[in-house]
Amino acid sequence: MSENKTPISEYGKYGLINHITKKFRSVNKTTVTGIGDDAAVIDSGKNLTLLSTDLFLEGIHFNLIYTPMKHLGYKAVIRAISDIYAMNGTPTQVFVSLGISSRFSVEQIEELYEGINMACNKYKVDLAGGDTSSSVTGLTISVTATGYAEKGSIIKRDGARPNDLICVTGDFGAAFMGLQLLERERRLFEKEKVIQPDLSGYEYVIGRQLKPEFPSPVLSELKSLNIRPSSMIDVSEGLASDLIQICRQSDTGCRIFYSKIPVDYETSKLAEEFNIDPITPALNGGEDYELLFTLPLENIDKIENLKTVRVIGHMTSSGTGNYIVGDDGSEVEISAQGWKGG
Amino acid sequence: MSENKTPISEYGKYGLINHITKKFRSVNKTTVTGIGDDAAVIDSGKNLTLLSTDLFLEGIHFNLIYTPMKHLGYKAVIRAISDIYAMNGTPTQVFVSLGISSRFSVEQIEELYEGINMACNKYKVDLAGGDTSSSVTGLTISVTATGYAEKGSIIKRDGARPNDLICVTGDFGAAFMGLQLLERERRLFEKEKVIQPDLSGYEYVIGRQLKPEFPSPVLSELKSLNIRPSSMIDVSEGLASDLIQICRQSDTGCRIFYSKIPVDYETSKLAEEFNIDPITPALNGGEDYELLFTLPLENIDKIENLKTVRVIGHMTSSGTGNYIVGDDGSEVEISAQGWKGG
Repeated sequence: MSENKTPISEYGKYGLINHITKKFRSVNKTTVTGIGDDAAVIDSGKNLTLLSTDLFLEGIHFNLIYTPMKHLGYKAVIRAISDIYAMNGTPTQVFVSLGISSRFSVEQIEELYEGINMACNKYKVDLAGGDTSSSVTGLTISVTATGYAEKGSIIKRDGARPNDLICVTGDFGAAFMGLQLLERERRLFEKEKVIQPDLSGYEYVIGRQLKPEFPSPVLSELKSLNIRPSSMIDVSEGLASDLIQICRQSDTGCRIFYSKIPVDYETSKLAEEFNIDPITPALNGGEDYELLFTLPLENIDKIENLKTVRVIGHMTSSGTGNYIVGDDGSEVEISAQGWKGG
Repeated sequence: MSENKTPISEYGKYGLINHITKKFRSVNKTTVTGIGDDAAVIDSGKNLTLLSTDLFLEGIHFNLIYTPMKHLGYKAVIRAISDIYAMNGTPTQVFVSLGISSRFSVEQIEELYEGINMACNKYKVDLAGGDTSSSVTGLTISVTATGYAEKGSIIKRDGARPNDLICVTGDFGAAFMGLQLLERERRLFEKEKVIQPDLSGYEYVIGRQLKPEFPSPVLSELKSLNIRPSSMIDVSEGLASDLIQICRQSDTGCRIFYSKIPVDYETSKLAEEFNIDPITPALNGGEDYELLFTLPLENIDKIENLKTVRVIGHMTSSGTGNYIVGDDGSEVEISAQGWKGG
């Protein structure tokens, strides 16, 4: 074993993967795109096969104190298939591997699979395999999703160009604020044993945390309007982190506008209660499961008529940095978060 | 959450998967084979795409006290691609997701990937993606392998017929005895702080535990001799458990012969030291990463000339049970192990 002890925290999530895998070279000609995008692309003859895999760990990605097993299964599927959608693909199969400690009952695992089944039915994907194992350390869920795309139709992270519009679906920061609220009520419960947590008025943010949906219909809308994004990613790490990932891979900078970032009323209200600027969870919260994509400028009229999409800024040339622009024109650099799992 | 609390241990590994997934129905016509075989089969146009996913958990599948990170990475790849080979496919890509706790250094993760890289190079597969995450509970490794097979060439678990020959590659029980030896030396070390564990004379069993290989050349040999197995599985759970899996899915019984089960000299010698019958680890030890397959009887002459394969018994008709036959003709029922991870 090596004598050197560099802490993992020195690298961000993407940094560690890049650092370690840079010496890997593909030998199979079917490996079209490997490490570094939402999903891997495999040439399977007529179509492209897309594949993505995610880990979901107890204590990092979920806390079973306030996460029902059914919701957990649902969310694990959404998380995996969102990477296939983000390549402009259609997910078709998921594979679920579980590490289960002895404190779980068969009924709990059945509830987990009920949630998996609900998500599979809604998004028309098949549970096609997996693995189960005992675990000494709680619940581990690994989900692999596969799907397909026609050749020439996939959208990667590296295609953005200066002046492209930066577009998003939905709103941001809600899942993070939902988590803060659940955490606060848990702490209150542990301290004062209040039986009934007070979550009324915050159904939206809690729903976004516990049972997210993916805006897959937007991809069909774009297609029917003949709008083809130049780059795309699903926002799971956080709007800032995922946008920077596109800028890095496309070799561009970006400017996004403070007042354009969509934030739901409940998210804002709750951020106020917690004494934080709502833009902070919107940029860095993560788990939004929305689409972030860039578009050549000539699409501006078409996209402004699309109610499900908002333009939040534009790409800039290489080396100009990544900034959020305030209402007064002041620029603040945005940065990816460090290692926090995800 | 349900009031019912059925312990997971009531089901074996295969039993739990079967119980929970029986209500899942496929909707995508590309899902050719789903849950229940070594790998899932996806129709990708010209060829079939095979996919398999495995979890590898610290404390269940490996102990870092005596497992070097490099070996661990190597073995995780072997484990995943063996499922693709067992469908008579060719593995082409692996995807590795890691959950890493803060006690690991970047250098240790680099060593892990070095082992992954070595296995990828040897078996000509590409590392094509993955996911990393922090973990509160040690090291979690999830490996997904994909590969391809020509249409009509895959071999499943359900094709065995009564009177088919039961064939195996390699020998059995060595990886298990290697683990027992490493465990014994670890306990001695903890008790008496002996610096140098005494492993001499047992290099083979320790190698089989720490750095297994898969007998993929046998598949080419069978093909070149025009021998087509009627069913096939990779032996990872244990010879008994995996053979019973074939019998169950093919609706047959089986008879295997005590004196025909291949056991290496080191395995036998070590089993004697531990006061156990060498046939016990051979049948139930697992982690052998050998091929187990059945063949129509007319292949008997061809297969007996193949030095890499041994015939250990034959399939019998449905309902006749699964037995091992001693030298004196006595029959002892063989059974799958219970829930022990894997």
